[in-house]
Amino acid sequence: MAFNFQSDYMEGAHPLILQRLAETNLEKTAGYGSDPYSLQAKERIREACECPQAEVQFLVGGTQTNATVISALLRPCQGVISAETGHIAIHEAGAIERGGHKVLIVPHYEGKISAADIDSYITDFYADANYSHMVMPGMVYLSQPTEYGSIYSKAEMADIHDVCRKHHIPLYVDGARLAYALGSPQNDLSPPDLARLADIFYIGGTKCGALFGEAVVMPDPGLIPNFFTVIKQHGALLAKGRIVGIQFLTLFTDDLYTRLGRHALSMAEMLKEGLHAKNIPFFFEPPTNQLFVILPDSLVFGPDGQAGFCFWEKYDDSHSVVRLATSWATTPADINQFLALL
Amino acid sequence: MAFNFQSDYMEGAHPLILQRLAETNLEKTAGYGSDPYSLQAKERIREACECPQAEVQFLVGGTQTNATVISALLRPCQGVISAETGHIAIHEAGAIERGGHKVLIVPHYEGKISAADIDSYITDFYADANYSHMVMPGMVYLSQPTEYGSIYSKAEMADIHDVCRKHHIPLYVDGARLAYALGSPQNDLSPPDLARLADIFYIGGTKCGALFGEAVVMPDPGLIPNFFTVIKQHGALLAKGRIVGIQFLTLFTDDLYTRLGRHALSMAEMLKEGLHAKNIPFFFEPPTNQLFVILPDSLVFGPDGQAGFCFWEKYDDSHSVVRLATSWATTPADINQFLALL
Amino acid sequence: MAFNFQSDYMEGAHPLILQRLAETNLEKTAGYGSDPYSLQAKERIREACECPQAEVQFLVGGTQTNATVISALLRPCQGVISAETGHIAIHEAGAIERGGHKVLIVPHYEGKISAADIDSYITDFYADANYSHMVMPGMVYLSQPTEYGSIYSKAEMADIHDVCRKHHIPLYVDGARLAYALGSPQNDLSPPDLARLADIFYIGGTKCGALFGEAVVMPDPGLIPNFFTVIKQHGALLAKGRIVGIQFLTLFTDDLYTRLGRHALSMAEMLKEGLHAKNIPFFFEPPTNQLFVILPDSLVFGPDGQAGFCFWEKYDDSHSVVRLATSWATTPADINQFLALL
Amino acid sequence: MAFNFQSDYMEGAHPLILQRLAETNLEKTAGYGSDPYSLQAKERIREACECPQAEVQFLVGGTQTNATVISALLRPCQGVISAETGHIAIHEAGAIERGGHKVLIVPHYEGKISAADIDSYITDFYADANYSHMVMPGMVYLSQPTEYGSIYSKAEMADIHDVCRKHHIPLYVDGARLAYALGSPQNDLSPPDLARLADIFYIGGTKCGALFGEAVVMPDPGLIPNFFTVIKQHGALLAKGRIVGIQFLTLFTDDLYTRLGRHALSMAEMLKEGLHAKNIPFFFEPPTNQLFVILPDSLVFGPDGQAGFCFWEKYDDSHSVVRLATSWATTPADINQFLALL
Repeated sequence: MAFNFQSDYMEGAHPLILQRLAETNLEKTAGYGSDPYSLQAKERIREACECPQAEVQFLVGGTQTNATVISALLRPCQGVISAETGHIAIHEAGAIERGGHKVLIVPHYEGKISAADIDSYITDFYADANYSHMVMPGMVYLSQPTEYGSIYSKAEMADIHDVCRKHHIPLYVDGARLAYALGSPQNDLSPPDLARLADIFYIGGTKCGALFGEAVVMPDPGLIPNFFTVIKQHGALLAKGRIVGIQFLTLFTDDLYTRLGRHALSMAEMLKEGLHAKNIPFFFEPPTNQLFVILPDSLVFGPDGQAGFCFWEKYDDSHSVVRLATSWATTPADINQFLALL
Repeated sequence: MAFNFQSDYMEGAHPLILQRLAETNLEKTAGYGSDPYSLQAKERIREACECPQAEVQFLVGGTQTNATVISALLRPCQGVISAETGHIAIHEAGAIERGGHKVLIVPHYEGKISAADIDSYITDFYADANYSHMVMPGMVYLSQPTEYGSIYSKAEMADIHDVCRKHHIPLYVDGARLAYALGSPQNDLSPPDLARLADIFYIGGTKCGALFGEAVVMPDPGLIPNFFTVIKQHGALLAKGRIVGIQFLTLFTDDLYTRLGRHALSMAEMLKEGLHAKNIPFFFEPPTNQLFVILPDSLVFGPDGQAGFCFWEKYDDSHSVVRLATSWATTPADINQFLALL
Repeated sequence: MAFNFQSDYMEGAHPLILQRLAETNLEKTAGYGSDPYSLQAKERIREACECPQAEVQFLVGGTQTNATVISALLRPCQGVISAETGHIAIHEAGAIERGGHKVLIVPHYEGKISAADIDSYITDFYADANYSHMVMPGMVYLSQPTEYGSIYSKAEMADIHDVCRKHHIPLYVDGARLAYALGSPQNDLSPPDLARLADIFYIGGTKCGALFGEAVVMPDPGLIPNFFTVIKQHGALLAKGRIVGIQFLTLFTDDLYTRLGRHALSMAEMLKEGLHAKNIPFFFEPPTNQLFVILPDSLVFGPDGQAGFCFWEKYDDSHSVVRLATSWATTPADINQFLALL
Repeated sequence: MAFNFQSDYMEGAHPLILQRLAETNLEKTAGYGSDPYSLQAKERIREACECPQAEVQFLVGGTQTNATVISALLRPCQGVISAETGHIAIHEAGAIERGGHKVLIVPHYEGKISAADIDSYITDFYADANYSHMVMPGMVYLSQPTEYGSIYSKAEMADIHDVCRKHHIPLYVDGARLAYALGSPQNDLSPPDLARLADIFYIGGTKCGALFGEAVVMPDPGLIPNFFTVIKQHGALLAKGRIVGIQFLTLFTDDLYTRLGRHALSMAEMLKEGLHAKNIPFFFEPPTNQLFVILPDSLVFGPDGQAGFCFWEKYDDSHSVVRLATSWATTPADINQFLALL
C-alpha cells in the first residue's frame, strides 16, 4: 500500500489521452511533429503562456530534455549553475557531463536556490585571478517545483531572472512536475510569468498525466539555432511526433493540465490531514504533491531490507524520511488504504 | 493519395496495443522497466530469439538506439564501419560523431555491404604504416532490411559475422524495420539466426506497429557493462517503462510482430502488381516493404515544387525516383486509391 | 639516406631559436603566454599580417590546433567541409569527431578543394528535403599548402572566401607548412591576404623551423569567445608559454620564417633537377617543399618489407610513389648523398 | 621580488637540458617518439621505477595528460573521485567534463584524500537504491604532492591502493611536482613504490626542470589499449617527440630529477627559516616546495589592487594567505632579496 505513493509516474495516462490516441489512431499524418495535432498543441501552449511568438518543441523525457537544452545553450568551457540537489546534479547518470559540461553547485534551501547565491557565485568567480582556467558559469538551471516539492514565488523567480540578465546568462526552468506547482494554492507564478521570466523552460508531461513527453518553450525562438536538428541529434525526436502532440493537445484543452495538478494537490491535502491526525511527524511539508514524513524503520523496510517506500534519507537510528507523492491519478481510496496501514 | 505510401510510420499503433495500454492504464507499477509487463516482454523476446540468457533493453527511437549502442561499444579512437548509405552515416544529424566516433564508409550494393569489403577495409587499414594516427575500425553496423529495402541472407550475414570474429570486433544490426524482413518470402534469416550471428541488434517497434520503441537484444549480457545506466545517461530511459514493455509484449504475443510484417509484404506484392500492370518502371524492387519506382516529375512535384512523395533522387531531367512504403496499416483501399491516381 | 627526406620535422629547431631560449633561460616571467616575449611575438605576427587588431594565440601542435579551433567554431549539429585528403579527415585519429563533429567530404584536386564544389555541396544540402536530419555544413577547412604540396592562388582563396561569405560560414586555413607556401616562387598569397580572406588560420611552427608550436590568428578577435580558456580546456596551453613565444618571436624577426621557407624551396629545386637528370619519373611535382616520385619497390622497401621512404601509395606492381620533403634544415650535402644513392 | 616565488614554472629549463637539445639539434630522427632518445628515456624511467615491463609515454602538459588518461580509463557513466581541491576539479577549465565525465568530490585534508573516505564514498554509492541513475565511481585521482604541498606516505598510498583494489577501480597519481615530493626529507614513497601502488601515474617535467613535458607510466602496459593513438587523438602527441625524450633522458641521467627536487627543498628550508626569523605566521607548512604564509594585504596587493604574490585566500579583513613556491631554479639570492623586502 505504501506503494500507492511511491512516485507520480506509476500509472499510464489520463484516460482522455488514451481516448484521443485511439480516436486518431489510423489517420495518416506526416512525421517528426509536422502533423496537425502537434501544430495545434504548440499553439495551445503558446496561448497558455501568452507568448504567441514562442518556439515550442516536444521531447520524450526529462533527462533527455535537460541534456539537450543545456548542451545546446552552453558554449565550450561553460557550466550550468544548479542546486546541489538538482536533478541534473545527481540523478541523470552524468548526462550533462557527457555533453561536455560541468554542473556548478550552489547551496539549496529545501531544494531552492537563491538569487543572492547565484549573484555571489558569478561575482566571486570573475574576482578570482585564475578564472580563465576555470569553468565559466554559462546558465542557471532550476526546477519548479524542486526535488523537495518547494516552489519559487513570482518575486523569487523575478530576482533570479534579474541576476541572470545582469550577468548575461540564460535561465532555464525544469518543469517536470509543473502541473503540481500550478495546482498549488500557494503558487503565484503562472505560465505567462514563466514565459516572461525564464529564457527557456519545459512543461512536464511524463509526471503530470501523459504517457510521456515534455514540451520545451523558448519565448525567444532564436535562442537555440536549429533546435529541431539538435533534438534529432540527441535522439529525442519522435518519428510519430503526433503521439506526443496529441497528448499535449489534450492536456492543454479545457485546462486539463492545471486541473490535474489541482486534483493531486487536493489529494495531498487529504493525505496530510490524515497523517497529522495520526501524529506522523513531517520532515518537511512542501506546498505541492510531495510530502516528506518520518516513519519507523520497521514500517519502511521489509524483512528483505528493501524499502517499501520512496526512501529519502535516514533520520535517526530507528527512523527514516520517506517521500510520499500524490498525482493526477491518486484516489481517496488510495489514501484511506494507506492511512489504515499506518 | 501518394501520401498513403510516404513512409511506414504515418499511423499510430496496431489497435491491440492501444487496447492493452487502455486495459492496464490505471494499474500502479514501478518505473524504468522493472514492471511485470516489461519483464514479460523481455522474456518473450528471448524466447523468440531462442536465446534465454540474452539481455533485452527497451529504448524509444532508432537514432537514439544507434547512438547509445555505438558509443557504448566503441573505445576511444575507434569508428564504426557502415555502408555509405547507412542511416547513421547520413540521417542521424551527426549523433554518432556527437558521441565521439567517426563513421567509416564502405561501398554499398542496393544498401548492403559485403563481408569481402569489410575484410579489405580492416586488412588495408592495418597495412597502412600510419594506421596508429587514424581511426581504427571498432565495429560493424548494418541494417536488416537496409535503407534500400534489401535484405541479407543467412549466408551473407554468416560471412559478415565471420569477418567480424576474425578481426575481433562486434557486429551490430539495426532492425528498425525488422518485421518487414521477417515477413518477406525471400527471407531466410530468423531471430534465432540473428541472435547467433550478431553481437547486438535491435527489433524495431516504431516502424513496425508500435507507437514507438525499440528492443535491444544482447545475446552476451556482459557486452555493454552497466547498459541500464548508459541508456539513462543517453536520455533513452522511459520513466513509465511499461508503456514500451506493454507494446512489445503485445507484438510478441501470438507472433503479431511477424504477422504485421507479412501483411505489409502482401500489400507490397499487391502494389507491385498494380504498378507493373500500369507499366510503371521500377528503379529497384526489393523483397521487403519498400518499392522504388520512376515517375514523371509532373506527378511527383506539386505546383509549389514540393514532392508529394518520398522523393529518393532525380532519375533524369523529367523523372524522379520515389520510394513507396507499405506497412502493417496499409489497406487494399489505400492501394486501389493510389493506383487510380496514376 | 632516403631518410634525409622522410619529412620536414626530423631535426630540432633553427639554431637561432635554441640560442634565444638559452639566452633567456633563467629569466623569471609569468606563465601562460602573458610574458613579454609572447606579447612581442604576437605583435610581430600582427604586423606581418598587417592586421593590428588580430587575436593571436599559441598552441603546441597541429592536430591539437585543428581540434581546438574546429570544435570552438562549430555549433552542435554542424560539420566541417574538408578535402577527402585533408589532414583532419584522415590523420588526426578522429580528433574532430571526438569533439563531436563530422568531417564533410568534398573532392580534391591534388589536395585542393574548389569554391564551386563547396558552393554545390552547401546548395545541394539545403535543397534536400531532409536536410534538418543531417549534419549542417558549418565551416570550411583547407591547408595552405595542402597535403599534396599544392598551393591556393590568391584568386582561388578569394573565391572560396566569397562562397563562405555567401553561405555565412567561416573559412579556416591550416598553415602547418605555411613557410613553404610563402617561400614558393609560385605563391601570390601573402600573410596579409590570408588575414583578409580567412576568418581564422594558423602559422605552423613545428614543420617550419621551431621545436614545436603553432600560432593561431583571428583577424576578428571576437570570433571565438574565451579562446584562452578553450585552449586551456583542450590541454593546449603551455604553462611556460614563453617557450613558444620566444620561438615565434625569433621566426618573425628579420623575416626568418619566410627565409626558411625560401631555403627549403631552393633545396627542393636542386633535388628536382637532380631527379630529372636521373630520369626519375614524377607522380606530381608541386610548387612547394614536397615532391612525389615513382621509384622501384626494390629501392623503396628494405629486406624487412619496411619502407625506407615516406611511402605514399602503390603505383603499379613493382613501383611505388614516395614523398620527398625538403625543409629549413636540408643541406646540399643531404641532396647529393641521396642522389648518389639512386 | 615577491615574484621570485610566484610559481615553480617561471624559468626555462635546467641548463643541461638546453645543452643536450643544442648538441643533438641537427640530427635527423624519426618522429612521434620513435627516436633513440625517447626510447632511451623510457628505459631510464622504467629503471628508476624498477618496473621493466612498464609502458611509458610522453605528453606535453598536465591538464592534457589528466584529460587524456582519465577519459581513456573511464567507461561511459563513470566518474573520477578527486579531492574537492584537486587540479582536475577546479583548474582545468572543465577538461574532464569535456571528455564526458564527472569529477566526484571527496573531502580533503590539506589537499590529501583518505582511503576511508574513498571507501565510504563507494560503499554508500552502491547502497543507494538509485545508484544506477547516478555517475559511478570509476577511478581515483590524486596528486603527489598535492595542490597544498602535502605528501602521501607510503602507508597512506598503500591504503588507497587497497581500497581501489577492493572496489576494482584504478588509481591514478598526478605527479606534476613529483620531484618536490621525491626531494623531501619527509618522503618515504619512492618511484618503485608508486609503480607498485598506482595503476598509472605521471612524472612531471614542466614544473620540475624541463621546458615542458610529462611522462606517463603504466606498470601494466595493457591498461589503456592503443594509448599511442589515444594520445594522438587528444592532440597530445609531439611530432618531434625527441624534444621531450631528450629532456626526460637528461632528467633521468645521474638522478638529476631527484637532485633538482632536493635543491628546491633545501631552498624551501632556507626560506622557511628566514620567514620564521621574521615572525611571519604560516597558514600551513607542508613538507615540499610550497609554503603558505599570512601577510598583510598592504604587502600582498599593489596600488592597482593586483596581487604581487600567488594569492591563495583571504585570511581576515586585513591579511591574506599567499603561496610561496621554490623550484629547481631558486637561488639563495632570490631568498635573501625577498626576505629583505618583508
